[in-house]
Amino acid sequence: MSILVVGSVAYDTVRTPLGHVDDALGGSATYFSSAAALFAPVKIVAVVGDDFNHGELDFLRARGVDTSGIAVDAGATFRWSGSYGDEMGDATTLDTQLNVFQNFRPTIPDTHRDEKFVFLANIDPALQMAVLDQVRDPQMVICDTMNFWIHGKRAELLELLKRVDVFVLNETEAKDLTGESNPIRAAKRILTMGPSRIVVKLGEYGVLLAGDDQIYRLPAYPVEAVHDPTGAGDTFAGGFVGYMAETGDLSFEGMHRALLAGTVAASFNVEAFSLGRMREIERAQLDERCLALERIAGWAWTKRLVGQG
Amino acid sequence: MSILVVGSVAYDTVRTPLGHVDDALGGSATYFSSAAALFAPVKIVAVVGDDFNHGELDFLRARGVDTSGIAVDAGATFRWSGSYGDEMGDATTLDTQLNVFQNFRPTIPDTHRDEKFVFLANIDPALQMAVLDQVRDPQMVICDTMNFWIHGKRAELLELLKRVDVFVLNETEAKDLTGESNPIRAAKRILTMGPSRIVVKLGEYGVLLAGDDQIYRLPAYPVEAVHDPTGAGDTFAGGFVGYMAETGDLSFEGMHRALLAGTVAASFNVEAFSLGRMREIERAQLDERCLALERIAGWAWTKRLVGQG
Repeated sequence: MSILVVGSVAYDTVRTPLGHVDDALGGSATYFSSAAALFAPVKIVAVVGDDFNHGELDFLRARGVDTSGIAVDAGATFRWSGSYGDEMGDATTLDTQLNVFQNFRPTIPDTHRDEKFVFLANIDPALQMAVLDQVRDPQMVICDTMNFWIHGKRAELLELLKRVDVFVLNETEAKDLTGESNPIRAAKRILTMGPSRIVVKLGEYGVLLAGDDQIYRLPAYPVEAVHDPTGAGDTFAGGFVGYMAETGDLSFEGMHRALLAGTVAASFNVEAFSLGRMREIERAQLDERCLALERIAGWAWTKRLVGQG
Repeated sequence: MSILVVGSVAYDTVRTPLGHVDDALGGSATYFSSAAALFAPVKIVAVVGDDFNHGELDFLRARGVDTSGIAVDAGATFRWSGSYGDEMGDATTLDTQLNVFQNFRPTIPDTHRDEKFVFLANIDPALQMAVLDQVRDPQMVICDTMNFWIHGKRAELLELLKRVDVFVLNETEAKDLTGESNPIRAAKRILTMGPSRIVVKLGEYGVLLAGDDQIYRLPAYPVEAVHDPTGAGDTFAGGFVGYMAETGDLSFEGMHRALLAGTVAASFNVEAFSLGRMREIERAQLDERCLALERIAGWAWTKRLVGQG
């Protein structure tokens, strides 16, 4: 099954302890698609300026990403600038130029309105809602957000969450949204807001999946040299949603397996600046690392034990 | 197989956001034994003062803990006082009175010198070494430590590590010992110092096991209301070592399963102040929670999948 993603296509200027890039390709929809397209066809809806170099998306189109829904407006492409400290945790935003994103009103082409898998990347909840209003019969709506919206557009976000199936956010966002410092209590609280499944990203410690009165945990794939965390959350979502779209398995256990694909996609992404690693990565490499993470999580030897017994 | 543990038997005064206790039973050997004895016989070597109420250890003796190796010296029992903030992370030590521990020179009774499983709880590395010198043919030496020794007795600790099989420490200690902020790189560095297996405790995020050119991760059992983290590391070690002593399985995968027992033991311990929870806990409750953690880690449905397949 294919996936509709609405988010940003941007130029990022990023500085980390291991180096920096200026005006490099970025954006939530771009990162998401680079991972999701390894599993299923992806259709992007976004906006860029007339300064955007469309050739930079060739590698996505070669992966089966439909970029026809990317509108071009007069003006400059959305730009973000940030830096990371030694811990490579959350970025410090140095500059944000919305540019053409300022007046972005997503219009979903008619050819895109029957998609069953919809990923609402981190944009204004009002815009995420406007997207949902244009999709005819979504089967699985996955939504991301950020503190900026949790604090600035809380009412709109809460309204949106009633129509979301899986809400993906990080530990800090979960705490800010609920006031609960304990991620388990926070996830349970969010489950009362609409979504039936909550994914709490714990950074280097992995992810937490809550729903169906159950909790699942998956460790992160151990990356020894993180070069640039930018897009980690979006590539995680790309692998996670991509796996579900490929298998069609929406069970809670199936989702636990989908976390594996997302976690591994993110682990590749952080190994280079911008989309450097995702640009070259092939499915076989991702599958291989998924098996490695199955060993780390204890799934591999558990299978063997049962196979023997 | 039975276990020899050398550590402290103490009185703790602890304050957390959920309450406080004064001069409550504590100590690394006490916490360790409360968990380990649920799996295998335990022999404690420690020292207390003439103010110690030996009746407080009846619940351990009832669990098959041999306390005959606890020496009584003139003076006061070791006392520690600490407080925890809202995050319930590392304790802030308010006061430490070594008292009879000041001149503690562990003497291992002859009846204790043939133990194969030896847990060196967090005491002066010089004393941990003195203990090893008295054990005839240890098969599995597990060692804990703390930043105080990493900084103050580094040479002695490094000398000791050459004789340690499994080194258990937390993330901060691993970083302080190696200078590596990345726990994976830190664990690999420590593997060159002697131990063949490293367990890095990640607090609420679980544990990391490194060795045999492999990494295993296990999430923590999700405790929604932590009352008192004191002794979490020692009860973890108790379940971890206890499980290995019970099964005799020293394989890397067996150790991954042992982490489950340790993780669950610690999850019970933090649910009440001092040894309140460990005092009443029964093996069946621990086994039940181990199954719950197998579900959380994905081992349970992995078994089912293979069972079906």
